[in-house]
Amino acid sequence: MTASKVETLRWRNNQLEMIDQRVLPAAFKYIAYDSAQSVATGIRDMVVRGAPAIGVAAAYGVALEAIQLSRQRLQDFSTNLTKGIETLAQSRPTAVNLFWALERMKKKWQSIETEMPNTIADELLNEAHAIMNEDIAINRTMGAYGAELLKEGDRVLTHCNAGALATAGHGTALGVFRSAVEAGKNISVIADEPRPFLQGARLTAWEMVQENIPVTLISDNMAGFMMNTGEIDAVVVGTDRVAANGDVANKIGTYMVAVLASRHNIPFYVACPLSTIDMSINDGKAIPIEERPVDEVKGFRDYHWAAEGVSIRNPAFDVTPAELVTGLITEQGVIKSPDKSKLVALFDL
Amino acid sequence: MTASKVETLRWRNNQLEMIDQRVLPAAFKYIAYDSAQSVATGIRDMVVRGAPAIGVAAAYGVALEAIQLSRQRLQDFSTNLTKGIETLAQSRPTAVNLFWALERMKKKWQSIETEMPNTIADELLNEAHAIMNEDIAINRTMGAYGAELLKEGDRVLTHCNAGALATAGHGTALGVFRSAVEAGKNISVIADEPRPFLQGARLTAWEMVQENIPVTLISDNMAGFMMNTGEIDAVVVGTDRVAANGDVANKIGTYMVAVLASRHNIPFYVACPLSTIDMSINDGKAIPIEERPVDEVKGFRDYHWAAEGVSIRNPAFDVTPAELVTGLITEQGVIKSPDKSKLVALFDL
Repeated sequence: MTASKVETLRWRNNQLEMIDQRVLPAAFKYIAYDSAQSVATGIRDMVVRGAPAIGVAAAYGVALEAIQLSRQRLQDFSTNLTKGIETLAQSRPTAVNLFWALERMKKKWQSIETEMPNTIADELLNEAHAIMNEDIAINRTMGAYGAELLKEGDRVLTHCNAGALATAGHGTALGVFRSAVEAGKNISVIADEPRPFLQGARLTAWEMVQENIPVTLISDNMAGFMMNTGEIDAVVVGTDRVAANGDVANKIGTYMVAVLASRHNIPFYVACPLSTIDMSINDGKAIPIEERPVDEVKGFRDYHWAAEGVSIRNPAFDVTPAELVTGLITEQGVIKSPDKSKLVALFDL
Repeated sequence: MTASKVETLRWRNNQLEMIDQRVLPAAFKYIAYDSAQSVATGIRDMVVRGAPAIGVAAAYGVALEAIQLSRQRLQDFSTNLTKGIETLAQSRPTAVNLFWALERMKKKWQSIETEMPNTIADELLNEAHAIMNEDIAINRTMGAYGAELLKEGDRVLTHCNAGALATAGHGTALGVFRSAVEAGKNISVIADEPRPFLQGARLTAWEMVQENIPVTLISDNMAGFMMNTGEIDAVVVGTDRVAANGDVANKIGTYMVAVLASRHNIPFYVACPLSTIDMSINDGKAIPIEERPVDEVKGFRDYHWAAEGVSIRNPAFDVTPAELVTGLITEQGVIKSPDKSKLVALFDL
C-alpha cells in the first residue's frame, strides 16, 4: 500500500468507514458509522483527527443522519436533522473545518429544504462526497505551491500529523512533502511525537515510511537541539484554525516549534486550506482551545506511568502568533508574512 | 514516607544500594552493587540518574572496587583499581559530577597510595561517605538561596527531575522548592514529563506528591502554552555540566524551555552545585552530548508505539546559552547573569 492510497474516510455499504487512528500503526482497521451521534463520538474519541478530516467526517455525519431520518415527515426530519448537526458541532471545539463543513451542509440543505426528505438526504450525501473530493484536490494544489518552497536536500520538521490521515487524502503539511518528492526533490522529514496522542510517532512516521520518504523521529523536546546543530532547514505544519490576523491554532507544541524556528532563522510554514481560515475571529486569543481528558497525559492508552496524586493539564492546541509565520500555504498560493489585509484580500471581502 | 527521607543511595551490608529509578513510581525497590563494573552498569542503564547522584554513585563504585581488590598485592591493586575507575568514567559522558567525583577519589587515593590496600579501601569508603554527606548539605544551602528568589504564590516550572532522586537527598531544583515550602512560602510546581524517560511524570511528580507540594503534570510541548496564558512565574532546573562561560547542559528540552521563558520574560534559574561547573570547558559547544539507545524513543519500557521503519535520534541533553540564564543558584549564593568573569571569581582562580 502506498500512503497516497490511504483512504482515511470512505463510503461503503451506505455507511461512513473511518480508519481507527487510535490503534495505528499497531493495527489497521476501519470502523463503520451510520449516524450523526456515532460520527460525533468518533471525532471526540479521535478515531479520526486532523482539521480537514474532521470536516469531511462531519459532512458525512450530516448526510448519514439525513438518510436515517428520511422516512420521517418533513417537519420531524428538519427538527431531528438540526439536532444531529448540533451534536456534531459539539464534538470538538478548536478545528474550524468542523463548523465550516456543517455550515456548507446547512447551506446546501437550505437550498432544497422544501424537497422530500429522501431527496434532501441524497443531495446531502452528494455534497459530502463533493467536500471529500475537493479536499483531496485542494491538498494537491497546496502541495504543489508548498513544494516550491523546499530546496533540494532540505530536512523539514513537521509537528503532529497533517497527512493523508488528517485529511481526505494527500495531506496538508505531508502533502507538501509528497508533492516535493513527486517533483523530484530529495527531502527528508523530521517528525516529532507529539505527546500525548503521539500522532507523529505513530501516524506521520507510518505515512512517510509507506512513501519511502526518509523520516526521523524525535521527541518534542529535541527540536531546539536539532535546530541548534543545524539539522533542520524548514518547518511545515498544518493548522486547525487561522484567525483573520494570521494567528495559527495547531496541535499543542506548535508555538514552541515556531519560537525556536524564529530564533534560528528557520522558515516556518503553515499548510492551510481556505476552509481553515476563520475570518470571523480577529486574532488567536479568541480561538477556543480544547482541554482534553487528563488520562491522556497519565500515559499512553491504558499504560499509565505518571505518579498517583499529581494534577494534570491537557490543552490540545496552542496559538502561534502571525509574526512567527513565514508563510501560509493555501490553494490560492503562498501568503508570506500573513496579516489581516492579506487575508481580507485573499477572500476578496 | 516523606520524600526528604528518600534515600536514593545508601550504604548497607557493605554494599551500595540504589533505588531502581527505571521502575518508579509503579514499584519501589533497591538494587545492591558491589563493584565498579556493576555501578557503571547501573549508571549507564539509569537505575540512578541526575548529575549529583551519578557523582556519589561513582565515588562508591571506586570504594567498592577497592574493597573487592583489597586482598591483592599493592601493585595489582593499583592496576585494577585504575581499570575500575576507567570503567566508571565511561558510563555516561555528559554529567561532569561523575568526573569530578572520580578525580576527588583519585586525589584521596594518591594521598595514601603507599598504604596497605585494605587501609586505602577504608579511606576511600570514608571519602565516598563524605561526598554523599556533603552533597546533602550543599543542596540544603542552595535550597535556602534559591528559596529567596521565589515569591509567595509562585507557580514554578521544572524540567526533568533535579530532586532528592537526582542527588544524595533534598535535591537541587526540587531542593529549592522544598526549602521555599519549609520557609513558609506557598508555591506550586509544574512538572513536564520529559520524554523519553519521563523523569518528571514519574519522579518529580512522585517526590512532590510525597511532600504535599502541589504539582501539575504537563507534557513537554505545553510549556509555551502555559507561559502564554500567564500560568508560569519562574523556571528552576538542575544541570549536568556548566561551562566556564555559564552555558548550561541539562536534560534535552531545557534549551527549549529557556528560549520560551526568555520570550515571556520569565526568570530562568539553574540550581548548580560548584561540582557541576567545569572551568576546563570554555563554552557549551565543547560539552559532550550523550546519544542514548533509540529504543527509548520508540515507546516507554517494552511498550513500543512508533511506526516500524522510522529512523530515530535520542540526544539526552542540550545546551542553554548563558545569555538565557537569569541566575545560577550555587552553595556560594546566586550568580546572576553568569559569565566567565563571575565564574572565575567564584572559584577564585
